[in-house]
Amino acid sequence: MSATAGQVIKCKAAVAWEAGKPLVIEEVEVAPPQKMEVRIKILYTSLCHTDVYFWEAKAQDSVFPRILGHEASGIVESVGEGVTEVAAGDHVLPVFTGECGECAHCKSTESNMCSLLRINTERGVMIGDQKSRFSINGKPIYHFLGTSTFSEYTVLHVGCVAKINPLAPLDKVCVLSCGISTGLGATLNVAKPFKGSSVAVFGLGAVGLGAAEGARLAGASRVIGVDLNTARFEEAKKFGVTEFVNPKDYSKPVQEVIAEMTDGGVDRSVECTGNINAMISAFECVHDGWGVAVLVGVPHKDAVFKTHPVNFLNERTLKGTFFGNYKPRSDLPSVVEMYMNKVRLQSSIFNLQSSLSVNIWLLLVQELEVEKFITHTVPFAEINKAFELMLKGEGLRCVIRME
Amino acid sequence: MSATAGQVIKCKAAVAWEAGKPLVIEEVEVAPPQKMEVRIKILYTSLCHTDVYFWEAKAQDSVFPRILGHEASGIVESVGEGVTEVAAGDHVLPVFTGECGECAHCKSTESNMCSLLRINTERGVMIGDQKSRFSINGKPIYHFLGTSTFSEYTVLHVGCVAKINPLAPLDKVCVLSCGISTGLGATLNVAKPFKGSSVAVFGLGAVGLGAAEGARLAGASRVIGVDLNTARFEEAKKFGVTEFVNPKDYSKPVQEVIAEMTDGGVDRSVECTGNINAMISAFECVHDGWGVAVLVGVPHKDAVFKTHPVNFLNERTLKGTFFGNYKPRSDLPSVVEMYMNKVRLQSSIFNLQSSLSVNIWLLLVQELEVEKFITHTVPFAEINKAFELMLKGEGLRCVIRME
Repeated sequence: MSATAGQVIKCKAAVAWEAGKPLVIEEVEVAPPQKMEVRIKILYTSLCHTDVYFWEAKAQDSVFPRILGHEASGIVESVGEGVTEVAAGDHVLPVFTGECGECAHCKSTESNMCSLLRINTERGVMIGDQKSRFSINGKPIYHFLGTSTFSEYTVLHVGCVAKINPLAPLDKVCVLSCGISTGLGATLNVAKPFKGSSVAVFGLGAVGLGAAEGARLAGASRVIGVDLNTARFEEAKKFGVTEFVNPKDYSKPVQEVIAEMTDGGVDRSVECTGNINAMISAFECVHDGWGVAVLVGVPHKDAVFKTHPVNFLNERTLKGTFFGNYKPRSDLPSVVEMYMNKVRLQSSIFNLQSSLSVNIWLLLVQELEVEKFITHTVPFAEINKAFELMLKGEGLRCVIRME
Repeated sequence: MSATAGQVIKCKAAVAWEAGKPLVIEEVEVAPPQKMEVRIKILYTSLCHTDVYFWEAKAQDSVFPRILGHEASGIVESVGEGVTEVAAGDHVLPVFTGECGECAHCKSTESNMCSLLRINTERGVMIGDQKSRFSINGKPIYHFLGTSTFSEYTVLHVGCVAKINPLAPLDKVCVLSCGISTGLGATLNVAKPFKGSSVAVFGLGAVGLGAAEGARLAGASRVIGVDLNTARFEEAKKFGVTEFVNPKDYSKPVQEVIAEMTDGGVDRSVECTGNINAMISAFECVHDGWGVAVLVGVPHKDAVFKTHPVNFLNERTLKGTFFGNYKPRSDLPSVVEMYMNKVRLQSSIFNLQSSLSVNIWLLLVQELEVEKFITHTVPFAEINKAFELMLKGEGLRCVIRME
């Protein structure tokens, strides 16, 4: 039991007071977790486009003042009534969507869209009592995505907390609680490329490179990266991308370019931009008979997906995914283990340099390379630098160190 | 070896001399099968909408004079050079599409869209030498779909011939070589409903009822039939349809009606009309998280499938299928066996009336009820009656007896 359990904690948090204005590090009061809630000490958090999108609040209503942040890692400080799944001291990843374990979606083996705890971008309060756990001088500061990880301490519903291997380095695995896993799962759980297959990935940002990393882990022989920015190809090679197509370099639709490169189309495609034309191209570029296209990127609210129905009748499949079809509590720990396989493997190579067993292991384990996604780190005091980097399109993930 | 092997056979065939005019029973000459070809004595054939569509030739170019017909059963009379898969005397189903066994589609476990022998509605000749095997007084009469089963004898590429159980009654299983298997396979092979699931079937013609029969065999607990003709519901009950929706009875879109009936949507849907609005409804009526919609019906060439991409992102899947994803030669024999299970089962019930083993068997076997689909039979001389019945929308399948 932590010394602070049941008490209000005063700590630092980066508060977004209004849309588009730099965050301000403030001292906030964090109330104790209530029924089915968990209070977490955040150690590392990283910045994702969704934080920036709701901070800018250009096309979207947002609630202010608010504590943003949803990709993070931390340690449970205390738990509220009824919580048995985690305890103080557990290492966890907070997740922007949840898993109640009771609804039809949680009971389905196929869905991760929990009816109770599904992502809600508008709600700024806890679902139990519709109140915020954050305040400054008695005035509420609102939550974001049920996570608000830009704070030294935060409170989440227990259904949004994934307990992970305590040996996992929290400064690395913090990036697995949103975008990287979204792309990775879109490939591994939904597109499911077979060994030796060809995969097209539309959009080479962090999510798209997560999808490419999934294709690499699945043993795809060709991974075709599609992006309007040719400069991204060099970085993308590290994630298994073998060929690059910039649609701006061609006068014909990119689906035709890809079909010509691949004798009729790729086996799988994953769309990570949210652009409606990229979605249509991603679908139409898969091979007839067996091609599967997966939509990941979030479209404009007025977007319309259009295609000739014969493209379906020729035995193509189109699926969408949310958070890579990972159930937050059940499945995220195994994503962390995919990274731990790499850590273990490196240690084995060190210990058993001359042993054949290392080669055998190489064939058996999926070794997710998380470090490649982390291009910058900043101390918490410089959190606004992370926003600047993202707005300039520099790097993939900037990890913010809370201490 | 048959006495007629290697010789021209003179026999009766129903010739379509021109679009929309009654077929005329003529004496035709049927040349011997060439390399990789098989000559078949047709015993039973049934009429499918596709025959009528290309006979009417209203919206479609068609070749005349032509011998139509593609749903049938028969016995191999002789085989051409290189044919090892079937021999004289084998019981077979001719199929309008083929399986060469060598192309990328045939080698894929997922596709049945053979590159060499895929359905071709325009070609009126054999693919080997681009000639017809049918003639009258030396003038060619053209083939249809590579099958031309409205003839006592016909010639097919061996890749379009499925060898079946010789005990199967040919007057029943003739209807399995096109429409019924298309609907059945769309459900069993592509939609794959789980036991206890809900399935919506759009269009309650023979293909749709094949899809409903598949849902019944898969153990679906609710099968919602959707059709503009309420009179079809009574017949549909025999095929496992438990509820009926006529879109004309509602002011709101049928996908909303179905979502309300099923607490958010059906688990699976199968679209068998080819109407673009029905396709969109069939997709949008499946449950988020896990719903799968399958398109079967052939759309108008200018049709455009439109939906909001969020319908995909909420974890719905849309797939199309061709011939129920059955590989003609590899898989059709097992469809015949599903019917033979029923025949065996009836015989067991007769033999073992008091035995518990019959109940156990009932749980294990899929017993396809083919008889339900056969609503009429006519002798070959009255083949035009089958066309009249179909044009009036009467019945499901009319079997034409060649002898």
